[in-house]
Amino acid sequence: MAVGIGPGTPELLTIQARRALETAEVIVGYRLYVRQISDIIAGQEVITTGMRGEVERCRRAIEAAAAGRTVAVVSSGDVGIYGMAGLLLELLEGEYRDNDLDLEVIPGITAASMAASVLGAPLMNDFVVLSLSDLMTPREKIQQRLQAVMPADLVCVLYNPQSRRRTSLFPEVVKQVIAERGPDTVVGLVKNAGRPDQEKWLGKVVDIPLSFIDMLTVVVVGNSTTDIVNGRMLSRRGYQLTGNDENR
Amino acid sequence: MAVGIGPGTPELLTIQARRALETAEVIVGYRLYVRQISDIIAGQEVITTGMRGEVERCRRAIEAAAAGRTVAVVSSGDVGIYGMAGLLLELLEGEYRDNDLDLEVIPGITAASMAASVLGAPLMNDFVVLSLSDLMTPREKIQQRLQAVMPADLVCVLYNPQSRRRTSLFPEVVKQVIAERGPDTVVGLVKNAGRPDQEKWLGKVVDIPLSFIDMLTVVVVGNSTTDIVNGRMLSRRGYQLTGNDENR
Repeated sequence: MAVGIGPGTPELLTIQARRALETAEVIVGYRLYVRQISDIIAGQEVITTGMRGEVERCRRAIEAAAAGRTVAVVSSGDVGIYGMAGLLLELLEGEYRDNDLDLEVIPGITAASMAASVLGAPLMNDFVVLSLSDLMTPREKIQQRLQAVMPADLVCVLYNPQSRRRTSLFPEVVKQVIAERGPDTVVGLVKNAGRPDQEKWLGKVVDIPLSFIDMLTVVVVGNSTTDIVNGRMLSRRGYQLTGNDENR
Repeated sequence: MAVGIGPGTPELLTIQARRALETAEVIVGYRLYVRQISDIIAGQEVITTGMRGEVERCRRAIEAAAAGRTVAVVSSGDVGIYGMAGLLLELLEGEYRDNDLDLEVIPGITAASMAASVLGAPLMNDFVVLSLSDLMTPREKIQQRLQAVMPADLVCVLYNPQSRRRTSLFPEVVKQVIAERGPDTVVGLVKNAGRPDQEKWLGKVVDIPLSFIDMLTVVVVGNSTTDIVNGRMLSRRGYQLTGNDENR
């Protein structure tokens, strides 16, 4: 099973995901994420690896499953969105083809949903989710995607905006937003969304505090319908609110 | 509180959402969605309206909250994605400004996550979520967005692909996908995702069964990395799977 454990607090797990974790005999995941669910898992074997050990982690999970055990591979957020589900499917189709194992994918609350709920309601209409990490997607492709979506007036959710190593792309994106959507474009930032140390920032793109942003910050760039109302980020969906709504 | 109740079965609720529904004194929602959570709510007052009664529903919810009651407005999927959270914020900032009420937004599993988990792992990299409903977004704007994102090689999740009244836009989108991405582009369709009557279809864009598609079908259009492997839809993220991953 590939299990999305949500943003990081046990109460943001679905009931299905919680049950999956409770029934698994082996839990496999990135060290930090496994720590987040330590209240739920008890007595199971736990296999953790560090940040870049995705492939090794998935291989060990598949080998445990091939040995007849029920295995849950966890990803924070949704395991199907930049998570482990895809890598598991690749391996099951590739080097482990002969093992005839099945994979159940159990969705979770993705960071876009969580950050949006913290900010208000910025995803009321069409949106795009982009990762600025160039670890597995060439930087040119990320830039080409940004160029394509900016004029389309889509709200943009940006994952992995910058890391200690990678600091030049995000300031470029900020410049691009200012050029394409104007200096007053509303942007929301959420760090550690859903966790006890959650922080948020809401303001105009020209005022973004670059020092606030790290690998775990989710950036939501508003579109032409996005405003700040009462300290919340709101993309208007287009309801007619004048008069009664008898004819809706 | 605005509460996302997920795709429709109680086990896809988060623990937080479940608790919110249990503690609410009044539950407000579209009739069908309230029926989906009838096992959880018991004894609370329930206010339901039909399909197009969104504004009326939110006004009644706010009036109940202004009378001092704890109110949960429910949306299927994520209440913050094409859901009721935005409309509630608009009303609280507009005609109910003087009531000084607070809104808590509780996220849920959105249809994109759910459909993706049913299909395999199509959202492993950047993607866009678009609604083809022209009820509140002009058709020209939807078309302009599709034109912008197609060449950007983003996986596209389409909500509300067609309804009984609106049947011409989706076939146009199919033509556009064939022209931009080629006839072999992989597409997944999921109807009633997460519900007992769930159905899915997976194949090439040229073979899409148009009669399968209704208002509740989620369409996932693959990109250049998307394949069908073992009956699952997989967008490859770009892992290097040859040799060991010592250097990752």
